Amino acid sequence: MIVMDAGALEAFIAAEFPQVSGYRLMRVDETGVTMRLDVQHRHLRPGGTVSGPTMFELADLAMYAALLSRIGPVALSVTTGASIDFMRKPAAGRAMTGECRLLKLGRTLAVGDVLIRSEGAEEVVARASLTYAIPPKR
Amino acid sequence: MIVMDAGALEAFIAAEFPQVSGYRLMRVDETGVTMRLDVQHRHLRPGGTVSGPTMFELADLAMYAALLSRIGPVALSVTTGASIDFMRKPAAGRAMTGECRLLKLGRTLAVGDVLIRSEGAEEVVARASLTYAIPPKR
Amino acid sequence: MIVMDAGALEAFIAAEFPQVSGYRLMRVDETGVTMRLDVQHRHLRPGGTVSGPTMFELADLAMYAALLSRIGPVALSVTTGASIDFMRKPAAGRAMTGECRLLKLGRTLAVGDVLIRSEGAEEVVARASLTYAIPPKR
Amino acid sequence: MIVMDAGALEAFIAAEFPQVSGYRLMRVDETGVTMRLDVQHRHLRPGGTVSGPTMFELADLAMYAALLSRIGPVALSVTTGASIDFMRKPAAGRAMTGECRLLKLGRTLAVGDVLIRSEGAEEVVARASLTYAIPPKR
Repeated sequence: MIVMDAGALEAFIAAEFPQVSGYRLMRVDETGVTMRLDVQHRHLRPGGTVSGPTMFELADLAMYAALLSRIGPVALSVTTGASIDFMRKPAAGRAMTGECRLLKLGRTLAVGDVLIRSEGAEEVVARASLTYAIPPKR
Repeated sequence: MIVMDAGALEAFIAAEFPQVSGYRLMRVDETGVTMRLDVQHRHLRPGGTVSGPTMFELADLAMYAALLSRIGPVALSVTTGASIDFMRKPAAGRAMTGECRLLKLGRTLAVGDVLIRSEGAEEVVARASLTYAIPPKR
Repeated sequence: MIVMDAGALEAFIAAEFPQVSGYRLMRVDETGVTMRLDVQHRHLRPGGTVSGPTMFELADLAMYAALLSRIGPVALSVTTGASIDFMRKPAAGRAMTGECRLLKLGRTLAVGDVLIRSEGAEEVVARASLTYAIPPKR
Repeated sequence: MIVMDAGALEAFIAAEFPQVSGYRLMRVDETGVTMRLDVQHRHLRPGGTVSGPTMFELADLAMYAALLSRIGPVALSVTTGASIDFMRKPAAGRAMTGECRLLKLGRTLAVGDVLIRSEGAEEVVARASLTYAIPPKR
């Protein structure tokens, strides 16, 4: 069951992570979310490519949103592990999307994976898998 | 053999990655490098912790520097894969260090791992392993 | 384009990897393959669970088959990296399937991911991502 | 503090994992363990190389032993995630060693990494990092 929708998630992330910007949720459903990053100059590397840490952040935030959409605003859920493969050069001057699939939602651990694409393209630029630890309820 | 020392690497990174700042190389030798990040406000998350993408960037740059110290200024060496485990909360208001160990330097692939700590602390905050693809010589 | 079908792949694997047994290909198409492992006593751990190395082997072989289905019998393609998340206990006494999705097929590197399930179940027991290096043509 | 030494760990593994054989613990101390695998015919692949799943098992068992050396015989500690990089061909006809470094021992999660070598060689054949979940005490 979805307990936070796109608007609630965007408001929560804006309030909790003021340093983060340019993200929007395009889809939130039982299977996961799709997050969009409006790529800005600070995300770029020479040749117009998007930096690795930027794609890592997109994947991480998409998974965070997918998790919170199901468990509510548990800000202190934290990433414990991630693996990411960079496969293709992203298109220059294009937004990116991260399509997150929530594979496990346990009591203390959640696992998902994310496909990152240049917006509108079929080819996958990067894939990531992420594990989050969910803090115990008081 | 070391073909780029700390000064040459810092100058190269400053020229090629103008969006990146706050890094210094504390050590460059045959086994790898130690990179230091002067943690700034934009790297933080609520509670004074350092963001995951910031630690990813520190690990990625440390590996990049370790690789270039051995093969010279091949800007187009790119990360093809990374895995990272976040283990402890970094100390608030403290610089971070990334200690990179170059494990393989092949003709087309290089592999290394990085231990990330809050400066001056013994405990490891995060560990990462990274693979870089080295472009063929023309 | 598929250049080796299920029968050709099974024959090739049987010839090249005589130590490996119990695998069958249920599906081979442009998007990837589904491999089935007939779980045997040597694959088990106490409590009837399937061992981690067994699931690693299933994921690795599924990716190998997906790769060879597209490039032909290049035996010396080798795994260079893998990450795997174990999420649920597999069902006791049940075969397992590995559903491989080929995400990148480059000239020198191929990347894919694999969802592992107990046969007939919807829930994912483990997920893996794998990178293979393809040897240069002579 | 070490609560199980090499002999206790070997006896425990032999009792709990009867399908596993050929392993010995060469070192158990506060920083981790070194495990040795007597490579046998069933571990090989064509060309005399050792299979990926075999190296995965060596890494996984070394981490399991490092964990149990500190927390005692908690058989139900399970691997939740692993990433492994295969870097060089192991020497043919040689035993392998896995040198595990325990990086975090928390209440519910433990993290370590493992360097795998052909016995007697300096070069690293593979590196792995592993996360274990520790079941709550009753």
